[in-house]
Amino acid sequence: MKKLKVKFCDIREGRYEVFINEEDAKDLGLNPNDRVKISVDRKSIIAVVNTTKTLTPKGYIGLSREVCSFFKLKGEREVVLTLTEKPKSIEFIKKKLDGHELTEQEYDTIVKDVVSRSLTEIEITAFVIGVYINGMSIEEASYLTKKMAENGEMLELEKKPIFDKHSLGGVPGNKITLLIVPIVAAAGLTIPKTSSRAITSACGTADIMEVLAPVTFSAREMEEIVNKTNGMIAWGGGANLAPADDIFINVEYPLAIDPHYMALCSVMAKKYAVGANFVVIDLPMGKETKVPTIEKARKYARDFIALGEKLGMHVECVITYGEKPIGRAIGPALEAREALQALEGKEVASSFVEKATGIAGILLEAGGVAKHGEGAKLALEYIRNGKALKKMKEIIEAQGGDPKISSSDVPIGEYREKVYAERGGYITEFSNKSLVKIARAAGAPKDKGAGILLHVSKGERVKEGDILFEIFSESEYKLERAIRLANELKPVTIEGMLLQRIPEYRIFGY
Amino acid sequence: MKKLKVKFCDIREGRYEVFINEEDAKDLGLNPNDRVKISVDRKSIIAVVNTTKTLTPKGYIGLSREVCSFFKLKGEREVVLTLTEKPKSIEFIKKKLDGHELTEQEYDTIVKDVVSRSLTEIEITAFVIGVYINGMSIEEASYLTKKMAENGEMLELEKKPIFDKHSLGGVPGNKITLLIVPIVAAAGLTIPKTSSRAITSACGTADIMEVLAPVTFSAREMEEIVNKTNGMIAWGGGANLAPADDIFINVEYPLAIDPHYMALCSVMAKKYAVGANFVVIDLPMGKETKVPTIEKARKYARDFIALGEKLGMHVECVITYGEKPIGRAIGPALEAREALQALEGKEVASSFVEKATGIAGILLEAGGVAKHGEGAKLALEYIRNGKALKKMKEIIEAQGGDPKISSSDVPIGEYREKVYAERGGYITEFSNKSLVKIARAAGAPKDKGAGILLHVSKGERVKEGDILFEIFSESEYKLERAIRLANELKPVTIEGMLLQRIPEYRIFGY
Repeated sequence: MKKLKVKFCDIREGRYEVFINEEDAKDLGLNPNDRVKISVDRKSIIAVVNTTKTLTPKGYIGLSREVCSFFKLKGEREVVLTLTEKPKSIEFIKKKLDGHELTEQEYDTIVKDVVSRSLTEIEITAFVIGVYINGMSIEEASYLTKKMAENGEMLELEKKPIFDKHSLGGVPGNKITLLIVPIVAAAGLTIPKTSSRAITSACGTADIMEVLAPVTFSAREMEEIVNKTNGMIAWGGGANLAPADDIFINVEYPLAIDPHYMALCSVMAKKYAVGANFVVIDLPMGKETKVPTIEKARKYARDFIALGEKLGMHVECVITYGEKPIGRAIGPALEAREALQALEGKEVASSFVEKATGIAGILLEAGGVAKHGEGAKLALEYIRNGKALKKMKEIIEAQGGDPKISSSDVPIGEYREKVYAERGGYITEFSNKSLVKIARAAGAPKDKGAGILLHVSKGERVKEGDILFEIFSESEYKLERAIRLANELKPVTIEGMLLQRIPEYRIFGY
Repeated sequence: MKKLKVKFCDIREGRYEVFINEEDAKDLGLNPNDRVKISVDRKSIIAVVNTTKTLTPKGYIGLSREVCSFFKLKGEREVVLTLTEKPKSIEFIKKKLDGHELTEQEYDTIVKDVVSRSLTEIEITAFVIGVYINGMSIEEASYLTKKMAENGEMLELEKKPIFDKHSLGGVPGNKITLLIVPIVAAAGLTIPKTSSRAITSACGTADIMEVLAPVTFSAREMEEIVNKTNGMIAWGGGANLAPADDIFINVEYPLAIDPHYMALCSVMAKKYAVGANFVVIDLPMGKETKVPTIEKARKYARDFIALGEKLGMHVECVITYGEKPIGRAIGPALEAREALQALEGKEVASSFVEKATGIAGILLEAGGVAKHGEGAKLALEYIRNGKALKKMKEIIEAQGGDPKISSSDVPIGEYREKVYAERGGYITEFSNKSLVKIARAAGAPKDKGAGILLHVSKGERVKEGDILFEIFSESEYKLERAIRLANELKPVTIEGMLLQRIPEYRIFGY
């Protein structure tokens, strides 16, 4: 036990950390990443030790913003530091590394320590890599899923059963949620959809919806919105639903890994947290998506369904075509506009409407609103008769947006440049990854008006000089950056129908 | 590319880090743990991104001490920030996670990125856990060992062959290096011993030797010392020998894991870096050591020998008894004194001298100085005839210490307390871990004079009130802390010869 004076250090958000002078640390027998208990009056927390030569002088302790705000510390203060043991969950993480199954109680301990920020990045990485290499049983996945949900906010909704959908990532332009939610809600079914923001994509559904209405709500506010309108399109991260998920993603992201079982639990924990009874999972398959092969798609489908069973949730999976963007728009405002256009009955890419109504149809059938095999037709009818648009406006209003908005009101970036075909031929390929990079270079997802509008579709014939796509940006500098990238990456491939001449067939002297 | 003003942030030593305001980060499309290139004039480095709300205002960049000192930045300056790709080694780390063998070139890339601080803790943890779970082939271990050595300083010694020894950890009081090195060097063999400091133990050999002489030298200074005296006992960490090792240990430590192959490579990289041709590995076996069972000891022995072969190094392993401390002293000064006492021919624990001369003997035989089977006898002779003491004093002098020192000059902590037997019986057990905790509570390894002196040995009969051990400290506060811990942990077990009465044999009515 030692008393130290406080120094405020605004660093390393998201974890309780303290900075101790190397001399004091040696004296106390502390190494970096050790745990200490910090107490002020009667409150105390466990924090992770960093050692420093000069940031904090001897006799002082540097506290991260999280620690200061926990204790509501201001001005000259002292805290009491006590040595403490490692969190119990480290033992369970080691058990996972050694290839053993963990119990429900052990997963609970791990998730509690993750959420309370008691584990360091090193320890969380060890857990995630343990799951990546050793996998887990479906029982284990159900424990982890439940504990991720239960150690966070849970929605309590009145109108049951509760419907939900999720699309696995990797396909730009996948704005189908903005059609599915109003269709399903218009049919009287409850669909409290939470979505994510972009990490590496051009925009998440939450980024798109935010063009039309606020998306950040507490769990109680979410319940209110859904009780009023049946539907919602909110940012999941705003309501502390399954908060461990973001912390796991934080260590997966730099390694560019997506452990199969972590992906399952991540999706299902959010469904479990909203109390979903029936869920459709969209598995976009294609070489640049998370599901590159049909085998991988089938494995996901099997595991999602099995995990759903353990959780008392009915799951259906659809494997969808993922080698091109959905619709023509990529970027928050462009996608919000395209979704509104579809709801307004305007001409949009038919494959976009087809995908959205196909998935909405499954939910309508499951909800008993449509007969088996007739869900998609009914979903399309909800668009045609304007009920989906009306419901979307109700949802926009309930979330605090302007219900009078129409597609033509959506502000799009004013700096624009068209990219033209350098030769004639057929559109044989879109690179999803390159399109995303260009949209991001143009400013998406932060600049809502930035993005790409495709003017061609796969298989289409183009002439030299035809417009391939248009880049939108909110700044000249970012537009230029995006154009340079587009010229370099060439995200649209055009080929002649004769793909290759074989020399043997050449006529000599020709 | 963006220009940002510099703000100095003294945090997170050991890695190039920058702190970017969240707004700027969003603008640049940067997430925490992304890489950026930072340039000043014509120099540039790759640094890892942290985002912050208030530590650095918009338009500023916070630079860690490492970054500032790399650029020699002072006062108001601007740096240029450019987005950059992830290090190549992340791909190879993923390959290891996926269970594949890596090539020599791939290990080289990983170690280079580790040493240049281009990898984050998350990525290094992923690598270490990949090795922990998936293991590696002996070929792979030889690649990693070589690359750990080659990406650091290497000793170039004149007098070959070069001899070396290493003891795996877990046994307190294991000061045998302080006898082995002078014996072997006195016999004319070259033994450039590098040792570590304590992380979790009461003291490393470097901490002990530091009581007698400085231990921090550059590789060139080490060569000079060894060329002069044949021997050396230096701190390995001071000369940047196999510097990746400490970085790997840094992520193993908080998880309390010691991946088998990382342990092999860690030991052998340091031997490879000093150019060792013949190495004896001491494997202390016992329930609180790194080698709990004979099977584990044999696996270590097989793998050390096989790895040695791949590296062109002859390795011999000895399995030693590790369930009690070596000698009677635990703690830097107490151990240095005990080693000097042994060299001076004074009465010390015979098992300590036996172990040291046994291992020294193997080296003498390998060096052709003693006939097969007669090495230990000759080693003891070097102690008896004072040549080992004379050599030790030469080494102390060459390292900058006082060669006139004798065991009675070594300063020991002045705050002392004896711990007595609470009952009579036989000493059946020492808890190494508890003894280490008590020594550390008393101030070891930082306070050189702190530690424990055992007054009894295993199997010895004691009466109630006999002295079991004595605690030494340099401060009253730490002495009290250590006494409290000793009373709680009871590190010495005393039992009667009747260990258990079995009820069936009881005489009723007795």
